[in-house]
Amino acid sequence: MDRKQIRWNGWGRADHHDEMAGREDVWAWLAHELGMPSLLVTPAHPLEDITLAPSRLSDEQKQALSGIAGDLRDDVYERAFHALGDSYHDLLRLRGGDLSTAPDAVAYPRSGEAVLKLLAYASENGIAVVPFGGGSSVVGAVSGGSGPFKAAIALDTSGMDQLVSVDREAGTATAQAGIYGPALETALNADGITLGHFPQSFEFSTLGGWIAHRGSGQSSHGYGRAEDWLIALKMATPQGMIATEDFPPNSVGPDLNDIALGSEGVFGAITEATFRVRPVPVVKDYRGWLFHDFERGTQAIRRAAADDLPVTMLRLSDPEETRFYRAFGSVGKKRGLKDLVQDIVLRRRGFGPGMCVLIAGFEGEKEKVEASRKRFETIARGLGAMSIGRGQGERWQQGRFHGPYSRDPMMDRGVGVDTLETAASWPKLAGLHRAVTTALETAIVETAPRPGALGIVMAHISHFYPHGASLYFTYIFPRQLDNEIGQWQTIKRAATDAIVANGGTISHHHGVGEDHLPWMAQEKGALGIEVLRAIKKSLDPKGVMNPGKLIPD
Amino acid sequence: MDRKQIRWNGWGRADHHDEMAGREDVWAWLAHELGMPSLLVTPAHPLEDITLAPSRLSDEQKQALSGIAGDLRDDVYERAFHALGDSYHDLLRLRGGDLSTAPDAVAYPRSGEAVLKLLAYASENGIAVVPFGGGSSVVGAVSGGSGPFKAAIALDTSGMDQLVSVDREAGTATAQAGIYGPALETALNADGITLGHFPQSFEFSTLGGWIAHRGSGQSSHGYGRAEDWLIALKMATPQGMIATEDFPPNSVGPDLNDIALGSEGVFGAITEATFRVRPVPVVKDYRGWLFHDFERGTQAIRRAAADDLPVTMLRLSDPEETRFYRAFGSVGKKRGLKDLVQDIVLRRRGFGPGMCVLIAGFEGEKEKVEASRKRFETIARGLGAMSIGRGQGERWQQGRFHGPYSRDPMMDRGVGVDTLETAASWPKLAGLHRAVTTALETAIVETAPRPGALGIVMAHISHFYPHGASLYFTYIFPRQLDNEIGQWQTIKRAATDAIVANGGTISHHHGVGEDHLPWMAQEKGALGIEVLRAIKKSLDPKGVMNPGKLIPD
Repeated sequence: MDRKQIRWNGWGRADHHDEMAGREDVWAWLAHELGMPSLLVTPAHPLEDITLAPSRLSDEQKQALSGIAGDLRDDVYERAFHALGDSYHDLLRLRGGDLSTAPDAVAYPRSGEAVLKLLAYASENGIAVVPFGGGSSVVGAVSGGSGPFKAAIALDTSGMDQLVSVDREAGTATAQAGIYGPALETALNADGITLGHFPQSFEFSTLGGWIAHRGSGQSSHGYGRAEDWLIALKMATPQGMIATEDFPPNSVGPDLNDIALGSEGVFGAITEATFRVRPVPVVKDYRGWLFHDFERGTQAIRRAAADDLPVTMLRLSDPEETRFYRAFGSVGKKRGLKDLVQDIVLRRRGFGPGMCVLIAGFEGEKEKVEASRKRFETIARGLGAMSIGRGQGERWQQGRFHGPYSRDPMMDRGVGVDTLETAASWPKLAGLHRAVTTALETAIVETAPRPGALGIVMAHISHFYPHGASLYFTYIFPRQLDNEIGQWQTIKRAATDAIVANGGTISHHHGVGEDHLPWMAQEKGALGIEVLRAIKKSLDPKGVMNPGKLIPD
Repeated sequence: MDRKQIRWNGWGRADHHDEMAGREDVWAWLAHELGMPSLLVTPAHPLEDITLAPSRLSDEQKQALSGIAGDLRDDVYERAFHALGDSYHDLLRLRGGDLSTAPDAVAYPRSGEAVLKLLAYASENGIAVVPFGGGSSVVGAVSGGSGPFKAAIALDTSGMDQLVSVDREAGTATAQAGIYGPALETALNADGITLGHFPQSFEFSTLGGWIAHRGSGQSSHGYGRAEDWLIALKMATPQGMIATEDFPPNSVGPDLNDIALGSEGVFGAITEATFRVRPVPVVKDYRGWLFHDFERGTQAIRRAAADDLPVTMLRLSDPEETRFYRAFGSVGKKRGLKDLVQDIVLRRRGFGPGMCVLIAGFEGEKEKVEASRKRFETIARGLGAMSIGRGQGERWQQGRFHGPYSRDPMMDRGVGVDTLETAASWPKLAGLHRAVTTALETAIVETAPRPGALGIVMAHISHFYPHGASLYFTYIFPRQLDNEIGQWQTIKRAATDAIVANGGTISHHHGVGEDHLPWMAQEKGALGIEVLRAIKKSLDPKGVMNPGKLIPD
């Protein structure tokens, strides 16, 4: 994917049409929601206005790296594009003109062998290497800084973008790690199969990135998380290739796949993966349900999990998320008879401000989808839920990758928006939801740019397991223009401290990167960190791989 | 479990009644099967006749260890009991009077804290520690030798045998790691729940052992392998405690559970585990099927896997295993009219010498069991299989833990019997089955004690996954009495070389121990071994934990 087609300081394609442009009614509504008299004008610095430090690589090094990779670039756009990931505070920095983390060059190797040689050279010459797939990390896992080294290169895997083979009998496929989501699915679909890994970043993230951060797609219940569908991989390290075989589960010591999963480029760069595929589903059935409250919606998901119900996705918005999207959708629309009738129906059935929307998705063969859907209906109706039909489900499907695009226009208007996620066992989930919501709301008010200003804090459950589920928070807030990074840090710290104090993991599917480092020792234990350090030392003795990520110093 | 109640040089309870005693018809039949004129008399050395080297622990060390553990024993029975595991060649050595691997003492700590202190003391004082649960390893993972150290203790976990807690909302339970299978299931069943982990060693193995060797129960498809049901654990190491939390799957770097799983005591000793539980099944429905050949039986399992069929177990015997158990069962029985009719039915339906028995087990709620069973019926009938009813399934259930008991009487009669297992992806499975069968048959003939003697080599598929399945081989052979260990090594080497050459893993659920060490580097790669060494070094810098197992020097 040509990097010029993708925004270097925002989400997605450069030519994306901003649907919010000119929607002044929406912006006025949002200002009101945030307790602000009006929104501000906070445009990004254009790239032409930003000074980038010269590349610190010597001509000899450039020549050597270029010879190994076959393609080395150090123009301003390439270096800016690889300076940071796609988190809220990455964008703050990029929009503010801070390119201090830009790598000194970007290498585009086209084979695992080239990557091996590149890493060996970098290790010998003390050059940091930042593996970079789609670059969509929202936790600072691809920041191009050199750490303690004198120079850094980004290792962009997107030149390794081929589907290598399909094994229909085994039900597996093998692809190079730099292939983007849409290219991978298109190639698989041509064979009637799918991986089914659809994170919100699907259009701008890669197979290798999904494995490297132990990711989850929106359909993870149906198709599995990265650790579920991964069968074998190749990971190039400064010490050589880690290559696992396509064995079924076995008892030959710890599984090296499990060590690569979640390694975030600090051990090496994943160059190829073999994974489970399934037939392209004949039917996709996504429908909406309304629950009276978050507790009962959660109950429904827990029962589906305990029941081993084959469902592709269950996604439950909390009352605030339910309210927000309903209100957002009706901005500028006149209320008609239909709305009035709807209000009456809801009130009669006892749905008040606590109500929660749940989207239930079923994919597969017609008969099985219907059987599963009916089993879920029984659970949902037993908990008093009301069906709100397929329209709601289809709208969700159409918009499933659009969320991040709305961040850029908000950034242009003095509004901050970020997401964070966690997971906990069922007994801890409600307390965790309350604690994190409160922490976010409080921190936003405490860091508000003016009295009366406040945030929008909403959450949903979108991944679930037999013993617990994830919680995904979105928070929108008016920015402290004179302290943007500090404000974000305060809010993030409050939320993550609340997560840790209330039995949640510091990340369900975003990863660790730089942002979650301060809580790593608490999550893994001091000895657990020692184990990770020992693994790193064995594969990357000079420490050149993605310095400053995943493993605290 | 009192060690005196369990055989120190054979399988199971000391008071177990030998059903083969006096069945001279069976022994004559077996001699004929093995091409031997008759079987021999090869009794085991009684413990009283064996000289055991004195304990190498100083009085001071004994006192210190005893003070820490609360219970330290060094009588002959205890040391002999912990000298080796339960493999064929372990028994050869024990029965031959070789106690050279006996530990110098056996510690029975009763808490994780005591284990931590014990390991710290052993590490400081250069004493090897061999974690020992039920001691049922068949790959040499609990041999009590001291490796390069001056003394060794067995760390017997069976004093840590309590169910700690049950969390019904999360659907999890926590138990100390030394609890035996039956005690664990009894405690859980009292709460209406089950773990569902039933390896053939179930009666004589422990929760911690199942995790430490990344095990599988016979019902693994329904209840999961150790890595599927494990949620959190405590593993004491010389450097401190690795304690993971009960988080759902997450993206916070590599999962430390995955590093403990399969670690076979070389990093530390697992002291506690939290695991997924399920309701005790209302219905258990096990039935037999007859397939025309192994290929079509394998097809049925592969289709069930691809179809995500919720089945607790599918177990397919190959033609030789099918033939052997039918012949064995009919020894000494007169053939009646029923047998003749059966023969005619089989012949009419085209079942010849290639026919294979498959046992299909379904557990759970009545309705779901029936639905799944019918789905499997459709698959089986579509492949021409014939139902042979519940009797066959019930007999399998009744005898599911009895297999190992038949080894001791064979050992008494000059007969060797061993099992080995592997797994591979579907496309490789048939070739692997042929290659290993041939390797075993050939090696047995080549090492036969007399011309014309031969082996019985049979196999079954008993665990399956979307992309492949396991193969479990049993081989019975007349022993070379003057070269028993050498003969076994030759046969084992031939089989494992064939496994490695034909795309199989060196162990599906037995583990690595000492026996599979020579093939570890091939399976994990040189760099993979470096990673395992690095992990070990970080947790056990002095290398006292279970020396000589899992990780090649």
